[in-house]
Amino acid sequence: MKKSIGAKPLAYPTPTYIVGTYDEEGNPNAATIAWAGISKSNPPWVSIKISTGKHSFKNIVRSKVFTVSIPSEKYMKEVDYMGIVSGSKEDKFKKTGLTPLKAEYVDAPYVKEFSLNLECKVVDDIDLDWDKPIIGEIVDIKADEEILNDKGLPDIKKLKPLIYAPGTKEYYGVGEYVGKAFSAGLELKK
Amino acid sequence: MKKSIGAKPLAYPTPTYIVGTYDEEGNPNAATIAWAGISKSNPPWVSIKISTGKHSFKNIVRSKVFTVSIPSEKYMKEVDYMGIVSGSKEDKFKKTGLTPLKAEYVDAPYVKEFSLNLECKVVDDIDLDWDKPIIGEIVDIKADEEILNDKGLPDIKKLKPLIYAPGTKEYYGVGEYVGKAFSAGLELKK
Repeated sequence: MKKSIGAKPLAYPTPTYIVGTYDEEGNPNAATIAWAGISKSNPPWVSIKISTGKHSFKNIVRSKVFTVSIPSEKYMKEVDYMGIVSGSKEDKFKKTGLTPLKAEYVDAPYVKEFSLNLECKVVDDIDLDWDKPIIGEIVDIKADEEILNDKGLPDIKKLKPLIYAPGTKEYYGVGEYVGKAFSAGLELKK
Repeated sequence: MKKSIGAKPLAYPTPTYIVGTYDEEGNPNAATIAWAGISKSNPPWVSIKISTGKHSFKNIVRSKVFTVSIPSEKYMKEVDYMGIVSGSKEDKFKKTGLTPLKAEYVDAPYVKEFSLNLECKVVDDIDLDWDKPIIGEIVDIKADEEILNDKGLPDIKKLKPLIYAPGTKEYYGVGEYVGKAFSAGLELKK
């Protein structure tokens, strides 16, 4: 039986991205978001939604660059902390003991301890009133070698990204392998 | 050791959304996408990327509405099939045996057998050259009662959404509970 549950921002899974930026004095900040996702293949784009007024938002408007680091589930507490606190009030890297590393191609920091790091340049002209997702072109990705498979691609079971469940506000891990994409469905094709 | 793996559309997890539309003759279509996510809280928005030229894309440009259905992992084969085949060539509902139901608030079909269904109205003026994610305002959500918790919110462990791993092109399930958001990180706060 279908039931209406109203107009709510609910879909599953959502990711946990750590958005890295520098402020005007060069201090690194890291903010956890879940309203985000890959948004184009070629060129590769990632979309992130950060509320206007947030410290990271202002940093991105000014610098036009950001990073996205994908944390593994063992950093759940740090990830949650970085979504609760504003970088204008606390030094989140210092507090968590995590290490900011300047990205190679953009002037923004990523989190060294997190195994996958996207370096991004903002695609649109954005300003302090910009209320839509910010689209970044992914100009390079850094990965810890330990999480790569024999083809040099990230293995999600080694990366162990955190899944965020909106509504109930919980974090989950990635579960069992279910099937191969662009393959399992072929048997239904004419 | 960090290694550059190039500019690629890779981040984890990505979802599997089934986008539902009608064509100009009222035939229902369903297309699987992974470049998508929630993109605002209030009003609630969802962003979906569909390549220009796709059947669903033309349907959305014309109708300015769509649905997003979240499938459970037991429908992996059907989900994969709906991402491989074009709705201009095969009747995907007929082929999979899945049931199109007209949404209540928008003129678009959702998949009855999938337990969470978002009814969406396109926010921007879009045309056939629109090459960015399409943003839809979520005007209502329908859910199977069986997947709701005692507060009326979707329980991700009952929904069992499919996770898509880009790069390796694999589907996974949701794993173990890891922690409570906006809570676990408080101990790191001053």
